[in-house]
Amino acid sequence: MSTPEAFPVPFSVAVRRGDLLKADCPSREVLKHMTSRWGVLVLVILLGGMHRFSELRRKIGGVSEKMLAQTLQGLEGDGLIERKSLPVVPPHVEYRLTPLGVEAAGHMEAMVDWIEDKLPLIMAGRESRERREEGVGQD
Amino acid sequence: MSTPEAFPVPFSVAVRRGDLLKADCPSREVLKHMTSRWGVLVLVILLGGMHRFSELRRKIGGVSEKMLAQTLQGLEGDGLIERKSLPVVPPHVEYRLTPLGVEAAGHMEAMVDWIEDKLPLIMAGRESRERREEGVGQD
Repeated sequence: MSTPEAFPVPFSVAVRRGDLLKADCPSREVLKHMTSRWGVLVLVILLGGMHRFSELRRKIGGVSEKMLAQTLQGLEGDGLIERKSLPVVPPHVEYRLTPLGVEAAGHMEAMVDWIEDKLPLIMAGRESRERREEGVGQD
Repeated sequence: MSTPEAFPVPFSVAVRRGDLLKADCPSREVLKHMTSRWGVLVLVILLGGMHRFSELRRKIGGVSEKMLAQTLQGLEGDGLIERKSLPVVPPHVEYRLTPLGVEAAGHMEAMVDWIEDKLPLIMAGRESRERREEGVGQD
């Protein structure tokens, strides 16, 4: 505070810890990028190393070119992935995680593993609840 | 397999581990419920114990009644939360995590903590990239 000229502090350093429960907290945007269906999958795939756009698209079933591009842009804006465009024909664009992105992707991977692992249990539970509800309906 | 009548195996027990990269895997639905903006926040709040609908709504800034109801329904369908409707006037509905939901919410909490914690860094990075891009634009 005594020497603001010598050490200019960017505005955003003043941003304190986020609060996702607050509607206007910018952390809501980060959550949106990280947890969009395609955002989760892109992060987890990039844990395996650099990928080209076309490789990502091939690995993620059902994603459109437009949605993938939008997803990558959001993650790049948050500094979670790095985009490198090589000046060749046809265009060759590479994506990789930043160190911050590796941390984010670690959380996503733990969650993805858990979902994939628990899916049989979740499906069985759904089925038994549906049977119970049908039973109740037949009273 | 030898005594199917004695131990009827529900269809879904045959569901193997999910694969979120496959467009038609039912795990995609679970991912959607857990990582919707409101799903994440509901799970994390319910780690703190049982909540009424109105309490959830008050805690989550910006959620509409309709979106909150839809979110809760999705999580209930996956067996992550339990809904208890008490026969009183006015209606009184309580929500709490199931044991499976506690596991899911643990992952969400780790991610939420990380995002809230890293927000200043993410914002600072975004700002410095924007300044750099403006600089490049002014060549």
